[in-house]
Amino acid sequence: MLGAPFDWGASYRPGARFGPRAIREADYLPPDGRRPHLSTGIDPLFELPVVDAGDIPVVGGHIEPSLELIESWVHTVAAAGAIPIVLGGDHTITYPDATGVARHHGFGNVALIHFDAHADTAPHQWGHLYGHGTPMRRLIESGAVPGHRFVQIGLRGYWPPPEVVAWMEEQRMRTFFMDEINERGLDPVVDEAVDHALTGGAEAVFLSLDIDVVDPGMAPGTGTPEPGGILAREFLPTVRRLARELNVVGADIVEVAPHYDQPMNITAALANRVVLEMTTGMVERRRLTEEMSALDVGDVDPARPVDAG
Amino acid sequence: MLGAPFDWGASYRPGARFGPRAIREADYLPPDGRRPHLSTGIDPLFELPVVDAGDIPVVGGHIEPSLELIESWVHTVAAAGAIPIVLGGDHTITYPDATGVARHHGFGNVALIHFDAHADTAPHQWGHLYGHGTPMRRLIESGAVPGHRFVQIGLRGYWPPPEVVAWMEEQRMRTFFMDEINERGLDPVVDEAVDHALTGGAEAVFLSLDIDVVDPGMAPGTGTPEPGGILAREFLPTVRRLARELNVVGADIVEVAPHYDQPMNITAALANRVVLEMTTGMVERRRLTEEMSALDVGDVDPARPVDAG
Amino acid sequence: MLGAPFDWGASYRPGARFGPRAIREADYLPPDGRRPHLSTGIDPLFELPVVDAGDIPVVGGHIEPSLELIESWVHTVAAAGAIPIVLGGDHTITYPDATGVARHHGFGNVALIHFDAHADTAPHQWGHLYGHGTPMRRLIESGAVPGHRFVQIGLRGYWPPPEVVAWMEEQRMRTFFMDEINERGLDPVVDEAVDHALTGGAEAVFLSLDIDVVDPGMAPGTGTPEPGGILAREFLPTVRRLARELNVVGADIVEVAPHYDQPMNITAALANRVVLEMTTGMVERRRLTEEMSALDVGDVDPARPVDAG
Amino acid sequence: MLGAPFDWGASYRPGARFGPRAIREADYLPPDGRRPHLSTGIDPLFELPVVDAGDIPVVGGHIEPSLELIESWVHTVAAAGAIPIVLGGDHTITYPDATGVARHHGFGNVALIHFDAHADTAPHQWGHLYGHGTPMRRLIESGAVPGHRFVQIGLRGYWPPPEVVAWMEEQRMRTFFMDEINERGLDPVVDEAVDHALTGGAEAVFLSLDIDVVDPGMAPGTGTPEPGGILAREFLPTVRRLARELNVVGADIVEVAPHYDQPMNITAALANRVVLEMTTGMVERRRLTEEMSALDVGDVDPARPVDAG
Amino acid sequence: MLGAPFDWGASYRPGARFGPRAIREADYLPPDGRRPHLSTGIDPLFELPVVDAGDIPVVGGHIEPSLELIESWVHTVAAAGAIPIVLGGDHTITYPDATGVARHHGFGNVALIHFDAHADTAPHQWGHLYGHGTPMRRLIESGAVPGHRFVQIGLRGYWPPPEVVAWMEEQRMRTFFMDEINERGLDPVVDEAVDHALTGGAEAVFLSLDIDVVDPGMAPGTGTPEPGGILAREFLPTVRRLARELNVVGADIVEVAPHYDQPMNITAALANRVVLEMTTGMVERRRLTEEMSALDVGDVDPARPVDAG
Amino acid sequence: MLGAPFDWGASYRPGARFGPRAIREADYLPPDGRRPHLSTGIDPLFELPVVDAGDIPVVGGHIEPSLELIESWVHTVAAAGAIPIVLGGDHTITYPDATGVARHHGFGNVALIHFDAHADTAPHQWGHLYGHGTPMRRLIESGAVPGHRFVQIGLRGYWPPPEVVAWMEEQRMRTFFMDEINERGLDPVVDEAVDHALTGGAEAVFLSLDIDVVDPGMAPGTGTPEPGGILAREFLPTVRRLARELNVVGADIVEVAPHYDQPMNITAALANRVVLEMTTGMVERRRLTEEMSALDVGDVDPARPVDAG
Repeated sequence: MLGAPFDWGASYRPGARFGPRAIREADYLPPDGRRPHLSTGIDPLFELPVVDAGDIPVVGGHIEPSLELIESWVHTVAAAGAIPIVLGGDHTITYPDATGVARHHGFGNVALIHFDAHADTAPHQWGHLYGHGTPMRRLIESGAVPGHRFVQIGLRGYWPPPEVVAWMEEQRMRTFFMDEINERGLDPVVDEAVDHALTGGAEAVFLSLDIDVVDPGMAPGTGTPEPGGILAREFLPTVRRLARELNVVGADIVEVAPHYDQPMNITAALANRVVLEMTTGMVERRRLTEEMSALDVGDVDPARPVDAG
Repeated sequence: MLGAPFDWGASYRPGARFGPRAIREADYLPPDGRRPHLSTGIDPLFELPVVDAGDIPVVGGHIEPSLELIESWVHTVAAAGAIPIVLGGDHTITYPDATGVARHHGFGNVALIHFDAHADTAPHQWGHLYGHGTPMRRLIESGAVPGHRFVQIGLRGYWPPPEVVAWMEEQRMRTFFMDEINERGLDPVVDEAVDHALTGGAEAVFLSLDIDVVDPGMAPGTGTPEPGGILAREFLPTVRRLARELNVVGADIVEVAPHYDQPMNITAALANRVVLEMTTGMVERRRLTEEMSALDVGDVDPARPVDAG
Repeated sequence: MLGAPFDWGASYRPGARFGPRAIREADYLPPDGRRPHLSTGIDPLFELPVVDAGDIPVVGGHIEPSLELIESWVHTVAAAGAIPIVLGGDHTITYPDATGVARHHGFGNVALIHFDAHADTAPHQWGHLYGHGTPMRRLIESGAVPGHRFVQIGLRGYWPPPEVVAWMEEQRMRTFFMDEINERGLDPVVDEAVDHALTGGAEAVFLSLDIDVVDPGMAPGTGTPEPGGILAREFLPTVRRLARELNVVGADIVEVAPHYDQPMNITAALANRVVLEMTTGMVERRRLTEEMSALDVGDVDPARPVDAG
Repeated sequence: MLGAPFDWGASYRPGARFGPRAIREADYLPPDGRRPHLSTGIDPLFELPVVDAGDIPVVGGHIEPSLELIESWVHTVAAAGAIPIVLGGDHTITYPDATGVARHHGFGNVALIHFDAHADTAPHQWGHLYGHGTPMRRLIESGAVPGHRFVQIGLRGYWPPPEVVAWMEEQRMRTFFMDEINERGLDPVVDEAVDHALTGGAEAVFLSLDIDVVDPGMAPGTGTPEPGGILAREFLPTVRRLARELNVVGADIVEVAPHYDQPMNITAALANRVVLEMTTGMVERRRLTEEMSALDVGDVDPARPVDAG
Repeated sequence: MLGAPFDWGASYRPGARFGPRAIREADYLPPDGRRPHLSTGIDPLFELPVVDAGDIPVVGGHIEPSLELIESWVHTVAAAGAIPIVLGGDHTITYPDATGVARHHGFGNVALIHFDAHADTAPHQWGHLYGHGTPMRRLIESGAVPGHRFVQIGLRGYWPPPEVVAWMEEQRMRTFFMDEINERGLDPVVDEAVDHALTGGAEAVFLSLDIDVVDPGMAPGTGTPEPGGILAREFLPTVRRLARELNVVGADIVEVAPHYDQPMNITAALANRVVLEMTTGMVERRRLTEEMSALDVGDVDPARPVDAG
Repeated sequence: MLGAPFDWGASYRPGARFGPRAIREADYLPPDGRRPHLSTGIDPLFELPVVDAGDIPVVGGHIEPSLELIESWVHTVAAAGAIPIVLGGDHTITYPDATGVARHHGFGNVALIHFDAHADTAPHQWGHLYGHGTPMRRLIESGAVPGHRFVQIGLRGYWPPPEVVAWMEEQRMRTFFMDEINERGLDPVVDEAVDHALTGGAEAVFLSLDIDVVDPGMAPGTGTPEPGGILAREFLPTVRRLARELNVVGADIVEVAPHYDQPMNITAALANRVVLEMTTGMVERRRLTEEMSALDVGDVDPARPVDAG
């Protein structure tokens, strides 16, 4: 677990630099680290060797050197065999986050499941390459994550323009708008997302979770709130499910801007629980794998890193 | 588009006078006016000749002269062949808004679809005729909108008293309580609302959208929040649908009181998107009409003003 | 109706001491006390002899003498034949609330239906017996409410640990986690809860309603918010239903901490409506009973106190 | 003591309608009413027969009928021999407040000492006579309080325009701008104000205290904050001094708008203490008078109402 | 430095339990610990061996066991030859804070300089001995700090009642009301306070600093704000001066309740700076002492603990 | 008048990007632009040809291209013979602001009077040249404003470190700490500042006004609040005085971060009034100049640009 107190890629309301601290502190439970998941009994911070490596020393106000540092730290974590979970920070950081992971697992080998109100696929932001509106574009262009390995869930609103949507289709990104989720329900959409992510050989997945995929009523503390999102009670079990069903090799949870979350502090609390659901799902996956191993079905080991072969 | 910074009809928490400014500013997108609707690709502020005519110069603290001014401005817009969309302001303004539209399209010719937690059909407010609890009564009494042309959606709570509910039934208003929506779902209710609005010849519709129809969790910035409302993700596509399926000749979006929306600013954002969904739906309607026209079925042109005949 | 301005049992964010005042004041309707329920026409504060007995004079900062006072006041109300509805205050007070009621109706005779994000069944809090994490344990241990008469709805999150969950199962408490509600829906769960509550002869029920069962987006003003809860629009009709279908002989609505609810004031408003839904349901029940009586089926009078026999 | 929950005369940020409630509740001391003034030992609410007569039933959204009611209530109190202290509400109410008092004591007989950032002497507000920018003009025009009996303290900012300032000088109003207070200090200015108020025979005084005379840093909860005001620690002893040195026959404390005072609630607390300082000063005056009486100097009794002769 | 996250002695607005965390975090400077005082050049956290020992594990909701723990921890620190600086927490903790220090330095040997709006000398709080209104009484009664060794600065408002003020005089406490500070200025009052503290042989001093001595405009984040206090710019240099001129052997800074300080966070920032001013003053004192020592005047070493002889 | 919505030079709490909008909107007076200064009668926005040129199109998240744009715009305004007043934005912008002005008036010819809690003379910020902690250093290094032409007023707190203070002295900057202001009063300090600014031939002055020079109680809406500042009532007349006594050829008012100013909005209001006081002072200066001219003393015309000769 790493914090990325970076928000100078934010186009509108800043403050996500305080996200990492807010997410860590937004918990009424004792500081003993015990967080037993109620319905599974799993205590993820004990059952997984979760380590909080503190905040990456980003360079205030300077995007590019900060992104380099983030990529380097994330890669170091991944290369050590650990799963980096980055607490943002604005969404710009997914470019270095997923790149750092892909450098270890192989460019093109990692799928990216992206929950967000926004596609984040703009060609540029105020004429510059990096910002919280462009990371997915950069990842596709660099080849770190090819377009056909992208699944986007929860998009809505009035951005980006049709030419960008057309580009996204050209890249064979799979996008699920809220309109589709409203009609079909979230679970069938996620079924399809899982299928898509696993298509064509990618066994590893990066989860990029923008808290603004949740409706602003339940996640007000964010920079660019877009009304009409999913509910917290849909998001939490979905994150756990994905961590259970897929080989998650990296993740970020971004765009928590705590100043817009006061005095309630419910957005940081939600992000805190997103991390716990994800790690609980990882334990569930490990247990399932162990059970399968015990049945001698080792060659479909879902926890094996994609680049291990 | 007109602002009506009027809130001296509010019985409880004031501040809707700052609604028009808040709704206009509550947008993280660039000030270039491009607002392409993600799932349809429609850019409503470009495809429709939307004009923001600024705020109506209402008379602070004086209800009656303010209502006269609002009616006059709205009528002027309607008479010019445009569709007035009034940003409130408290709900008192629906009396002059819908009257101004009805003066152009003919008293009795326009149906009114009213989303709200409250019926707003009180006989008086503190002994006076005008206030945010009475506009629907006044419209029925004046004949601008007859009772049987009213559809109300989302009502709940502990007001008005049974004698007023009985009066509403006598007027043949069609009301959908949240209890019914909870049981049947919103879509079937809206199907019925559309049918009702079109019954008996009214081809034109005024949409009066009180933001408090949405649950206070998702629309806290309002004067008289009533828990238990619909979700933002239900409201937005419903507004678009109505603008697509019906000949909307006027609308207002009211009761955004930004002081109760801080620091999140999510209620004004929701109202901003309501306007965009509505205008997007209008473009969809126009396109459908043009397609129908191209098929030479012009005599059922749904965009034709009702009084054009 | 009694206020219990007590929050020194809160383990995290305090402030529920201001809950009773906030709940009473959170209403935009006139102070005439008329609160006609819209879809039933019932005006509960007029049709029931509802009396607000003010606040219990709890002892600031001292848990045990405060709990004794609360139990004594609640018992006095119950013994007078009235139904105590206690406005909290933190959840510690359910121990004296339900004990005071059980003293009148007989230890073991009253079922307890408990809506909450948390089980509140810890063996102790910081080494002490009383606190908002322990009341249900204390009630079971004292025999006031046996474990098999408990139904808990809405639990979620990362607490309590498995050994406590195991103890709860040993006590034959019936618990419905949010995971189950997400899969099955709330109504079927409540059907089962009603069945469970009535099993084995308990005709009387105490409702303990922790506002944090509702998602923090819709009930932010609380001490220990846990994301992923039910919606306000589910909670309100459910409370009414329970009061209609069951013989409610006491209730509390707890954990409204108004400081986290500003400036929106929507949590206190929700709690206010919870009280009105409950009392409306009680009137519905009385009417049904009277109808049944009129049909000469008096010996199944559901409103009869359980200890009246 | 009377509340006037009236704010439809406010030209900018509304909410002073909640001022009376906020001022009454803004006190951390026990509800036993004991408020012993620390440095004098006087317990004003016990030593004076202070009665809280509740709120005047003003007519929401309607200025003129509300002002009539306020004047009538205030006059009734004054005519009963009591000293009306009106908790506002916006400053419009000083017109009926001071008129009601002057009707009892004689038009022209009562001086008015007015603490405020604003002169409130506009000829009209949006073309209408009544509003929070005009009450002092109306009082002068009606003759209730002649211009030469006015003292204004604390004025600053960019309003009203020079033609109004010229009119004020013509009326022989005595105004002390903040510039003068900054140079000379508040105490010498108040000395002069006292002299002016007593000039020419007026033995009775009405104190009109706009909380915005205090700097917005210490009184943020107000509608039209003007930076650069006096300090709370200057205002409180000055109010007490005036009540001790002058025969105060009526007062109002206005423009507390609690929504802008959250979560601190310090403006309402300040207004609460203003009332206590004033009543403490009245007790001091009575004691001084009694001492003087004991010395048989009764014919300079400063507490004698002006119209008693 | 110790945190005491204790607020169950608060009679009104709770939340000071979050004071220690807020005070530590309320700083925009880098986490390197360098805090060079601008006008003296002293970097107190480097020049003194300041250690943050974390928070005392107080017992939530239980006053007496918490006070025992606090006293024990403070005494341990003092006995180790260090100067305990306790970050509160509500003012109840001054009883164990000063007792813990006095146990080391000798009961009766330590003077207490107390900045506060309130005397905190009540005989009891709701019938119980401990609470934030009683610590000074308890210290005098136990003999830890005799009444004649008390200096209180900044008292104001309407509490405590005259019989308590009379008791305070009997104990020969020296109290400076705001009225006196307003007339004479703060510096002469502090001169006298220093003299008084040193009278009769007490060479050591405990500073008890209630943030509410500062005006609520500049310190809104507190539980019982009393308008009319001193300015931050007076308080900060005064604290430094006292630490320079007196042998401070312990201190606490209390009643920072961060929830009332949002979003500004200026009260916690002020308390943070109070600690820095105090430690800067201690360095100034040490330097002066060393200079004096260098001049061979060692036997008036002002830094020598009083019980060292 | 120009807005610079730039805050990516802020080291701590961001949000000053919304400063320009907040300052423009923070006014309760009518939008007619009339702002007659109460004690002088001057209506500065009418008497001076004040033009609001809107916001400079800074590049979000990119410091250097933004600074280039700002310098270019400011220089353009100055070169046109106008006086640029830049609404920040964080303090980084003073580097381009003063440079743009100096490019027109001649490097080294313009003095800079700097009100601030912070010296802003760091050699770098996180290893980079530009940020809100470095602008004064950059100006001195480039020669735009030599050190001996700097006057700094209001500095306090715990930054920068002594080596930077030493560098400042080497540059012959004149700095007035709050300690000195507390002792001497602000007026004598400003007398000396005026003398210093005029020393050695600089007839023109740039005023750089950081709102955090004012105490956080009166200016909470800022990024790096430092307790213990001057009062609003001192700041406003001082700004007017400087504009009257000196030939101000450019100014900026920076570090208004409106998110920390809610709901009070008093910091933006203060900044708004700072602009009005400054322009009022400029009119006063022009009038004095004209009077002097009328007396035929034209060759000491203080309004003549320094580079005009």
